[in-house]
Amino acid sequence: MTTDPSRAERGPGPTAPAMPLRFEDGALLVLDQRRLPGEETWLRCESPEQVAEAIRSLAVRGAPAIGLAAAYGMALASDPGAAAETLLTSRPTAVNLAWAVERCLRADDVLAEARRLHREQEAADRTLAALGAERFERGDRALTHCNAGALATGGYGTAGGVLLAAWERGRLAEVWVDETRPVLQGARLTTWELARAGVPFRVIADSAAGGLMARGLVDRVVVGADRIAVNGDVANKVGTYPLAALAARHGLPFYVAAPVSTIDPRTPTGEEIPIEERDPAEVVSGAEAFNPAFDITPAELVTAVFTEAGVLEPPYEESIARVAAG
Amino acid sequence: MTTDPSRAERGPGPTAPAMPLRFEDGALLVLDQRRLPGEETWLRCESPEQVAEAIRSLAVRGAPAIGLAAAYGMALASDPGAAAETLLTSRPTAVNLAWAVERCLRADDVLAEARRLHREQEAADRTLAALGAERFERGDRALTHCNAGALATGGYGTAGGVLLAAWERGRLAEVWVDETRPVLQGARLTTWELARAGVPFRVIADSAAGGLMARGLVDRVVVGADRIAVNGDVANKVGTYPLAALAARHGLPFYVAAPVSTIDPRTPTGEEIPIEERDPAEVVSGAEAFNPAFDITPAELVTAVFTEAGVLEPPYEESIARVAAG
Repeated sequence: MTTDPSRAERGPGPTAPAMPLRFEDGALLVLDQRRLPGEETWLRCESPEQVAEAIRSLAVRGAPAIGLAAAYGMALASDPGAAAETLLTSRPTAVNLAWAVERCLRADDVLAEARRLHREQEAADRTLAALGAERFERGDRALTHCNAGALATGGYGTAGGVLLAAWERGRLAEVWVDETRPVLQGARLTTWELARAGVPFRVIADSAAGGLMARGLVDRVVVGADRIAVNGDVANKVGTYPLAALAARHGLPFYVAAPVSTIDPRTPTGEEIPIEERDPAEVVSGAEAFNPAFDITPAELVTAVFTEAGVLEPPYEESIARVAAG
Repeated sequence: MTTDPSRAERGPGPTAPAMPLRFEDGALLVLDQRRLPGEETWLRCESPEQVAEAIRSLAVRGAPAIGLAAAYGMALASDPGAAAETLLTSRPTAVNLAWAVERCLRADDVLAEARRLHREQEAADRTLAALGAERFERGDRALTHCNAGALATGGYGTAGGVLLAAWERGRLAEVWVDETRPVLQGARLTTWELARAGVPFRVIADSAAGGLMARGLVDRVVVGADRIAVNGDVANKVGTYPLAALAARHGLPFYVAAPVSTIDPRTPTGEEIPIEERDPAEVVSGAEAFNPAFDITPAELVTAVFTEAGVLEPPYEESIARVAAG
């Protein structure tokens, strides 16, 4: 365990985004998100296998960050074909992973390509966050699920970036943070990020979101995405779909924030997206459990998708085709 | 910690309902549900104050069981007026509590009245469970939230009783058990009861229910209630309303199982029901949290209410007026 190198490098400014990935001295350093917020521990990965294990075990998580970690993993490979296979099977739902590995397979200088992807991710986050923040209004109370901040992207954050940008523009009063069972990414990671940035928040049990909406305590919902189908269906952390259904019932905007690399041109609808089932012990020990890690939100429930290529709105077949083709 | 006296009394039959309350030797013995399923520990309450503390701390919980505990608490009172006040303020949302205390205030022999309430509760549970089970069909996969079994009622269970009765009639294939954050009544208590009865179940994160419905893995939902307004709005454990909204979206029956004493003739609609806010530390330690214990499900989302006086169906103003008046 070491102190946070990103903080040392960037100076004491409390709003510097967390940096979950660093490549230095021939290794990928991964901030172990399983131990946050209690400990800031860094894992040193010197092979694609070690990177794949860091992805599988959720030491690094979040669709864009997984893609970046895999890209750096490719830079550590002696056999790119074998490394690609190992990394591609580490988690099944996010599509950025496959996209990043494929870009590295085509690159001459893989490390340079990984660093380029990393810079692109940060720029994309900043752009889509600014676009999303435009939709907020002073006094807004936003609800978010899981963690889609800098920890999840390696940049500024997608949904988390939108929240930070709205806060910086004076358009956000408070964030409701779903704790996000079973792994508690909201209670552990989003709170850690928001506290660093000084954004007011309160954690709620995931199942409390509906009651809050019914009582008029939520103005808009913003989440990230693990994969977006070409019809606009969104795969994201389990619990996203209920939020979207409830937001629609209460007439609240439901936004998805994600880089264009999250859109999979080979996935026509949400039905074709594989839903990872994780260890039942994440939910409960000593009893039978079922632990799908994601769910599918149908496009009809999504008000807008914030991407670095612009704000996508219904009909999604058309708006997505424009940016996915570009 | 002692062994379970209900089990000793009833013999080794594994399907004997758990008995969370026993009055003997001038004291109320309360099975400490905070320590289940790991330990079966009994608290000995010798005063109304001790009973109120057992209610406040969730050692005994579930609207009907709270009412019975309060009735036995009244039987321990030297000053009935003061005892009533202490017990009535121990938790705000359930209405059975007030109903039971008022019956005891009017009784000559308070202990006899408490025992009568206890017998009535068990009979009511058996009746409404049988009525509810009639709505099930072979192969059904039912979803439930929180715990509304024998532990919650002191009898056979309301929603839990419906599940047991459906299982005994061969009309239930499996139960999806919402873990029910933040106190995990589903993962700890409902699983304990279903395992005792040999009913197959799997625990899910609360937020996974919507995805399960979307994938066609749920046939019906059944929950208990803490209070029912005269227009049919239902207060129950936080997370109930989202289930009802999702069930409606997927065309699934959403049932409430509750004794008539849960209906409050003095509560016109759900808006008048106070929502208890519990300690934020139940949700998360070391961060701001908001912890409403209940939510309100609008009557329009409720397919039927199973009571000992019959199955209530829309329009609830009429069906409820019939039984609440009777």
